[in-house]
Amino acid sequence: MERIMMAHGSGGRLSHELIRTLFQKHLGNPYLDQMNDATTLPGGDQIAVTTDSFVVSPLFFRGGNIGKLAVCGTVNDLAVSGAIPQFLTLALILEEGFPLDELEQIIKSVAETAAQAGVRIVCGDTKVVERGSADKIFINTTGIGNITNRLVGPEHIRPGDEILITGTIGDHGIAILSEREGLEFQTPVVSDCAPLNGLIDAFYQPGVKCMRDPTRGGVATTLNELAQQAGVSMLLEEVNLPLLPSVEGACGMLGLDPLYLANEGKALVIVAPEVAEEVLRNLQAQPLGRFAARIGRVQDGKPGLVLLETLLGGKRIVGMLEGEHLPRIC
Amino acid sequence: MERIMMAHGSGGRLSHELIRTLFQKHLGNPYLDQMNDATTLPGGDQIAVTTDSFVVSPLFFRGGNIGKLAVCGTVNDLAVSGAIPQFLTLALILEEGFPLDELEQIIKSVAETAAQAGVRIVCGDTKVVERGSADKIFINTTGIGNITNRLVGPEHIRPGDEILITGTIGDHGIAILSEREGLEFQTPVVSDCAPLNGLIDAFYQPGVKCMRDPTRGGVATTLNELAQQAGVSMLLEEVNLPLLPSVEGACGMLGLDPLYLANEGKALVIVAPEVAEEVLRNLQAQPLGRFAARIGRVQDGKPGLVLLETLLGGKRIVGMLEGEHLPRIC
Repeated sequence: MERIMMAHGSGGRLSHELIRTLFQKHLGNPYLDQMNDATTLPGGDQIAVTTDSFVVSPLFFRGGNIGKLAVCGTVNDLAVSGAIPQFLTLALILEEGFPLDELEQIIKSVAETAAQAGVRIVCGDTKVVERGSADKIFINTTGIGNITNRLVGPEHIRPGDEILITGTIGDHGIAILSEREGLEFQTPVVSDCAPLNGLIDAFYQPGVKCMRDPTRGGVATTLNELAQQAGVSMLLEEVNLPLLPSVEGACGMLGLDPLYLANEGKALVIVAPEVAEEVLRNLQAQPLGRFAARIGRVQDGKPGLVLLETLLGGKRIVGMLEGEHLPRIC
Repeated sequence: MERIMMAHGSGGRLSHELIRTLFQKHLGNPYLDQMNDATTLPGGDQIAVTTDSFVVSPLFFRGGNIGKLAVCGTVNDLAVSGAIPQFLTLALILEEGFPLDELEQIIKSVAETAAQAGVRIVCGDTKVVERGSADKIFINTTGIGNITNRLVGPEHIRPGDEILITGTIGDHGIAILSEREGLEFQTPVVSDCAPLNGLIDAFYQPGVKCMRDPTRGGVATTLNELAQQAGVSMLLEEVNLPLLPSVEGACGMLGLDPLYLANEGKALVIVAPEVAEEVLRNLQAQPLGRFAARIGRVQDGKPGLVLLETLLGGKRIVGMLEGEHLPRIC
């Protein structure tokens, strides 16, 4: 009998397979089949909707906690879809015995992060399960945003476009891992967990063709998704990947590839070549975008193929995440 | 140190306390503070939003499973709020090792129930946690509906209004309990789990002032909420409570009060006296409403007080659910 494996929740290949063979098979409809970070729904005013559950472990980490993460993750899915995040729902599953003071800290973070992102929590739900039936607290947030005239999506990507990232890669993944494993680095790695809607409002301009936040599965998996959806090939340049020295050191020590590490306050931005310079300058002028970089370009070639030009000048294929190397990262 | 107790998830008194002292305190805003089954949001077209997580145990029971329940629960919260349910999001938290064929059964039920209710699943999320970190599967659904011109809500309730229920009381609670405890009744009790939007479309007419589905905490807790929100008193008549003989028998045997048992396919409907007869007739003409009954009336008196006129002719106070007598009912 086939069973659920950790990798079904990795955001990588097995997650995609589960979506195709189970969810799309039984639930498919033109809305669900959009398969973007948020779904556009009809109505007098069109709205965008997205949902995410958060099961991160540990609950508290350098740079945030599960409450902050639950707001950022959903706000960012709306923002990269070109929507203005407006409303969040908040549903908690609590384990019997969970300390109320920790719950209060988490809820305070939800409130602060929602205020920072300019969104309101509009309804909620709380369920409690017996001790041992859940691990402390799980949070679902569902977000609703206003559709803007920002025409972004993988369907706009063309060969020749440039690939930008709004900052350093892998900070969240290493922050969680070091918290979980008790690793100490000379410069502690802080999660990049942050709402991106303000940053996007600051740099967005026509010519920005697609945005997506590389969370589970990292930059590699997200670019594979985009390359497949757009039917293009992509070439990344290793020399241009922005990495904090501490993250680079940790990856080297632990044998991790930063391209597969989760980010919770970064967006990949695909732009027309003629605006790349200007978008990058505007990004770098923002605190959240100061380490933004141009990391590659879209090209003709096998649809869905993502290549990396290594430091040594060779090229290797960068596939979607296989298996699950860092569970419960968000 | 204070800790989360099962009763914080009961839907009863402690749930309300947690909402007031923690969620409203930190997250309060005019939308959240509506405190109805669904929240009305502004926009060109107003929309209604509601969220619910489902942790029912066992996952499969007579009359349904967690997938069917997850659709019905959210559809019903929208429908009783006077909205037309349109879209659902679907977020799963899976335990590593969960059998894929059970997952497929659940997703098929989601699809069937969504089709029956006329709603679409528009986006989703799947997280997987290690074996032992969750109990099999938890589901969150968030629902979005179109606001109609149905002006329903506790603010419309007045003394003299009649209290109807759309069918028998406590079926879901007893169905889950008997499944869980391996109890066998001569006539097995089947959960009433069903989407109510079609039924509501069939009986709604001006003069219907408020609807609410008595899930966790049952009829007693829901009427307490309404009596408090409306600032009125209510009198129930025990002789008129519609009960299946098997549910009545089980309650007698187990010492349970059916007024506190969960229902997943029933609505309490408060109506102006002049339309009560007609609404009841229209209800009883529908398959889902064939056991509908007039169970009491709204009256002047201490705001928030709910009384029961017993079979013996005495009166007793019916309070909100205290503690938690049947955890993980939904």
